[in-house]
Amino acid sequence: MKVTAVKLHPVAAADPPLRSSYGLHAPYAIRTIVEIETDEGIAGISETYGGEQPLALLEAARALLIGRDVFQLTGLWKSFEEKAEADAREAAGDRSQTWLLPGENPLDRHTRTFAAIEIACLDAIGKALGKPACDLLGGRAREQAAFSAYLFYKHAGGGGLGDDAREDEYGEGLTPEAMVRQARQMIATYGFREIKLKGGVLDPDLEIETIRALQGEFGRAVPLRIDPNCAWSVDTSIRVGEALREELSGGGYLEDPTATLEGMSQVRRRLLEKGIDTPLASNVAVTTFGHVPQAWKLDAVQIVLSDPHYWGGLRAQRQLDHLCSVLGMGVSMHSNNHLGVSLMAMAHAAAACPHLTYACDTHYPWQTAQDEVVAGGRIPFHNGCVRIPEKPGLGVELDYDQLARLKERYRKLPYRKRDDEAEMRKHVDPDWKRMLPRW
Amino acid sequence: MKVTAVKLHPVAAADPPLRSSYGLHAPYAIRTIVEIETDEGIAGISETYGGEQPLALLEAARALLIGRDVFQLTGLWKSFEEKAEADAREAAGDRSQTWLLPGENPLDRHTRTFAAIEIACLDAIGKALGKPACDLLGGRAREQAAFSAYLFYKHAGGGGLGDDAREDEYGEGLTPEAMVRQARQMIATYGFREIKLKGGVLDPDLEIETIRALQGEFGRAVPLRIDPNCAWSVDTSIRVGEALREELSGGGYLEDPTATLEGMSQVRRRLLEKGIDTPLASNVAVTTFGHVPQAWKLDAVQIVLSDPHYWGGLRAQRQLDHLCSVLGMGVSMHSNNHLGVSLMAMAHAAAACPHLTYACDTHYPWQTAQDEVVAGGRIPFHNGCVRIPEKPGLGVELDYDQLARLKERYRKLPYRKRDDEAEMRKHVDPDWKRMLPRW
Repeated sequence: MKVTAVKLHPVAAADPPLRSSYGLHAPYAIRTIVEIETDEGIAGISETYGGEQPLALLEAARALLIGRDVFQLTGLWKSFEEKAEADAREAAGDRSQTWLLPGENPLDRHTRTFAAIEIACLDAIGKALGKPACDLLGGRAREQAAFSAYLFYKHAGGGGLGDDAREDEYGEGLTPEAMVRQARQMIATYGFREIKLKGGVLDPDLEIETIRALQGEFGRAVPLRIDPNCAWSVDTSIRVGEALREELSGGGYLEDPTATLEGMSQVRRRLLEKGIDTPLASNVAVTTFGHVPQAWKLDAVQIVLSDPHYWGGLRAQRQLDHLCSVLGMGVSMHSNNHLGVSLMAMAHAAAACPHLTYACDTHYPWQTAQDEVVAGGRIPFHNGCVRIPEKPGLGVELDYDQLARLKERYRKLPYRKRDDEAEMRKHVDPDWKRMLPRW
Repeated sequence: MKVTAVKLHPVAAADPPLRSSYGLHAPYAIRTIVEIETDEGIAGISETYGGEQPLALLEAARALLIGRDVFQLTGLWKSFEEKAEADAREAAGDRSQTWLLPGENPLDRHTRTFAAIEIACLDAIGKALGKPACDLLGGRAREQAAFSAYLFYKHAGGGGLGDDAREDEYGEGLTPEAMVRQARQMIATYGFREIKLKGGVLDPDLEIETIRALQGEFGRAVPLRIDPNCAWSVDTSIRVGEALREELSGGGYLEDPTATLEGMSQVRRRLLEKGIDTPLASNVAVTTFGHVPQAWKLDAVQIVLSDPHYWGGLRAQRQLDHLCSVLGMGVSMHSNNHLGVSLMAMAHAAAACPHLTYACDTHYPWQTAQDEVVAGGRIPFHNGCVRIPEKPGLGVELDYDQLARLKERYRKLPYRKRDDEAEMRKHVDPDWKRMLPRW
């Protein structure tokens, strides 16, 4: 089954004014939908990061794809891996993901490009064989993938501009009380049973207060996580870790409190000295397989938060799951803004990974039916989980009318990459700059 | 596609009087052929270790297999892995593979049982989809698997007993000169381009001389390896490593010179201090995924010699390949006596593993057409390589007449496990005992 055509669809989906240590989300999140066609008349789809750079990399890979058997990806992986290793050697010591937004990291550009190809090929293979994608990887460790309520401090107002501008069901969320309300709303809709708070936005004491308020509301049965995206110094990280030792126990974790593996390692060591073994998670200090042994040696990261979109696809996620199991590390998945195709790829990846035992992140609640590219509309959640459908491949098809709408939106956008700092300066503070550490 | 029947065929194949630090090979090597049948009328086959204990473990797994979808193996792996971890905890510190023959190690009994199941399921899946097994794992890194000439010090006379006894084309091999002759004969027949010498049999000086004679005959373009199966002390290992620093360079390695990870680590450190970076390989100090991080931390092993038959099958081999790549370790495959079904499983595993860059071991030249269970007879080699056929699954079928013959042989055998020490006492030295270290 050989690839005969590769179609790349850059799209934009309305996104509310969410905050993080990177700054402010723009009114539209950008993504790329990939479609491959094969000589057997079977197509495959995937979704990946958006904008100029990811698109150019996929465009450059087109020649490697046309004529390739979708079953023959190992050689392609090998050549992409070699390029990635060369990049890593050049960038020695530079943990650039700390400073860049996901999807903009040159260190993962090759595995990211490969992932978009691999997932589309697995979708096509699944369709050819009448098998769900996760069953092509050895079968399921579970029948559904659990996701967590991903809370964001945010300004009032929803995403989109002009005619596209829409109501936002969550409203402003800049206080502990408002965040409890946000969590209640989101859990009422999706049934999530674990909660992650994007931090690094307010003063750490207010973020501590938010976590405590969430625990007050939902009790200890709901694991809590906080991710300030490296906004804290080592000392502040330790202070927060101490303050939240109880709240983050029982399935919780502290994600990327501070920058670099060395910083994370210090936080870990000093928390352990105080008898606090809250695990540290990361999707920033550890973004490629090459980082994992170092993170393990330094005990800097106890839970790797992967992203199949930039670690190399579904088989790579399975390999990461195994690697973490061998090293005694935990594994879960972080998320970026995405639509239904990515959600299904993440669900299949989670289903196939026996060692993945934390609910994965998803931004899905922040997008709406108006911006879904998947035929039949939004993917349903049951008790915070996405069920693996009995359909072949990823189990979803594209809605081409919707795709055309979102492509037209992208065409009209004045930007071609995510820049949360610029948005922050435009709407909140004309002098705003990302500072690590800020506190 | 669900499993409806599991057939276990214990078989025996004539084996010449080969020597190693374990002792002497018996006149018959024992193996188990596994057949599964499915509700779609498609069968799958595999081959694994033989004798009572492997057979009993497979028998016990039968209930887990009947009714199982061949695509759904992750849950089964998970349950076997949990049992293996429990075993490892109980056996803490005991590297029992050093003392036991492969196939008799209780630490890998669960992954070994799983492997036989997984390979038969992949064979069935491949047949159902019309795809070679390696293409189910992501495709090929290479179109053929390279094997090395596996030389053994040996007594005169071939394998088998009574009517089965046969000529041995290699004759006695207990001197450096005889081993050069053995290598010449084997290379003339199979075209191997790398050589491994099973050592730990003669005085180390004679084994050094053998390696030098081989290099004298074949030149530096043919990489050389020696494997004394832990028969040497740390000091002797270092002495041999120094003596063979040139001969084992350029793709060669020193395999399991001494017992335990700690011993290997000492050998490595002291050789490095002398400026000798001959890599150490192992299939004894590292036999499960749990051993790999420790081996890496201690720098005790630079090349992991896997065996898909006891590491957990073809997907596990692919995971090991990836793990070693991430940790900067090399990877290849060791071998035990086997027939054509195992040879093809090893070839598919090697084809799917991009990081596997050494020719794999095989005992295949030590068996003959008279003892092949594969329809059409012995698997052909081209320049020391086995080509991946364009047939589905493993690409081989059983010859049921041959299978019946080899089963009948097994039935008549007086032993149900390999015991090289007993053979040694019977035929060579009534007081012989395996001693580690012997030198």
